[in-house]
Amino acid sequence: MSMTIEALADFMQQAFPQVACDFLVHEEEGELVLEMRIEERHLRPGGTVSGPSMFCLADVSFYLAILRKIGPEALTVTTNAAINFMRKPEAGNLIALPRLLKVGRSLVVGDVLIYSKTDQGRENALAQATMTYSIPPKN
Amino acid sequence: MSMTIEALADFMQQAFPQVACDFLVHEEEGELVLEMRIEERHLRPGGTVSGPSMFCLADVSFYLAILRKIGPEALTVTTNAAINFMRKPEAGNLIALPRLLKVGRSLVVGDVLIYSKTDQGRENALAQATMTYSIPPKN
Amino acid sequence: MSMTIEALADFMQQAFPQVACDFLVHEEEGELVLEMRIEERHLRPGGTVSGPSMFCLADVSFYLAILRKIGPEALTVTTNAAINFMRKPEAGNLIALPRLLKVGRSLVVGDVLIYSKTDQGRENALAQATMTYSIPPKN
Amino acid sequence: MSMTIEALADFMQQAFPQVACDFLVHEEEGELVLEMRIEERHLRPGGTVSGPSMFCLADVSFYLAILRKIGPEALTVTTNAAINFMRKPEAGNLIALPRLLKVGRSLVVGDVLIYSKTDQGRENALAQATMTYSIPPKN
Repeated sequence: MSMTIEALADFMQQAFPQVACDFLVHEEEGELVLEMRIEERHLRPGGTVSGPSMFCLADVSFYLAILRKIGPEALTVTTNAAINFMRKPEAGNLIALPRLLKVGRSLVVGDVLIYSKTDQGRENALAQATMTYSIPPKN
Repeated sequence: MSMTIEALADFMQQAFPQVACDFLVHEEEGELVLEMRIEERHLRPGGTVSGPSMFCLADVSFYLAILRKIGPEALTVTTNAAINFMRKPEAGNLIALPRLLKVGRSLVVGDVLIYSKTDQGRENALAQATMTYSIPPKN
Repeated sequence: MSMTIEALADFMQQAFPQVACDFLVHEEEGELVLEMRIEERHLRPGGTVSGPSMFCLADVSFYLAILRKIGPEALTVTTNAAINFMRKPEAGNLIALPRLLKVGRSLVVGDVLIYSKTDQGRENALAQATMTYSIPPKN
Repeated sequence: MSMTIEALADFMQQAFPQVACDFLVHEEEGELVLEMRIEERHLRPGGTVSGPSMFCLADVSFYLAILRKIGPEALTVTTNAAINFMRKPEAGNLIALPRLLKVGRSLVVGDVLIYSKTDQGRENALAQATMTYSIPPKN
């Protein structure tokens, strides 16, 4: 039921063509990592990445992490999301590391850390998000 | 120090030209109400408004409610945001009602309810958000 | 299926005898209001009410608001709770005002505002909580 | 400025005598781990640990992790806490693993995972909490 990184990239392209071009799906040490290409339209005055853009990155990365685990359930929806903005992003692409803490029958809970791509040591998380997704019942 | 509805609309146009065209600032019974024009790019498969779009609406409405109270502090930033998605939006514009619960020297805390514009009685909130903004020290 | 204020007080006494003595269930203008008797053991250094005590008040008030609506479902459980501590409580009893925003088949979402009992005008909320409860499927 | 595990246990005993007896402070691979002794009064019907008890464990563990890093600042207070309850606790003691994500001048942000003490492999987190603490300005 699980999906490969390539299958995830294809799925995103078909299901969400509007946003797919913003994202690159990677794998690092067996974990899914999502990169967001930061463009002018993601920025706020002062050159910082807007909150909604970081929220979108967290949301999409967590969604892909769920699909990777349970297969292509396009109807899976966010029910709760909480995000802490901790540091001002530098210019340049962002990286999201989603983590599934519980995959239940109807709810999936986990968190996401967001870093600058240039922060190779993953020392200064820019934002932390906690997400709950609902999986529709099969019938 | 407080701003009128007209001054808020002007401020948004100047400070955030990328997003200003998506929003209409209203006043209802003395309270600020923010309307979001829903366009194709805000939608997800099935015609529902995307989570990041609703997050953006909550964020902008709360930001404007702060400016309305304390004046034009463009550097005010979101530090924490939590959103519950409760009902699937119908097609059409959305309305956000922000509420300031505490305006401190360095932190502002409050919440936002989001409705369909057609839900005149404000009976079925689509989403509820809790926001914390940080006000930079003056010096 | 809904419960009266008296039935709620009885239910709490039977189901949660450990905590029932801390709480008084009231009704104000048709809304449930929960009062917490603040004792020495709820306090922290400086005389302020501890965070976990306020969390408990929010949690119990929201639970009772659900029972009032759907009847005695003792197995209903909290799945997500977020609380903002905004002002330092004065000495004396606290009041919680729960509000149900969505009562679905499996999830109930809403919020709670906490005030000092002496804040008659309900002007300075001490804390704001957002809660999600899960209702177990009936079978 | 940092504190040893022994200094933390002493500090807790003096500053919070009401709750200190419930907790045991450990160190594992350089990280602080807080154990909560589960007693009858922490339980709910069915033998599960109550939500407020788990909230308290998360809160105290995060507070100690901050003190460990910045020294004994008894006035540090929780401003925001969000907790996801993911699995029903078994009988027996609980373990909290706090993690500091950002230690700023005025705010500290991080998260906490809670496990059963018997879950040696730390595979099934019972709860996940995100915490923000405010550090009072020094003057």
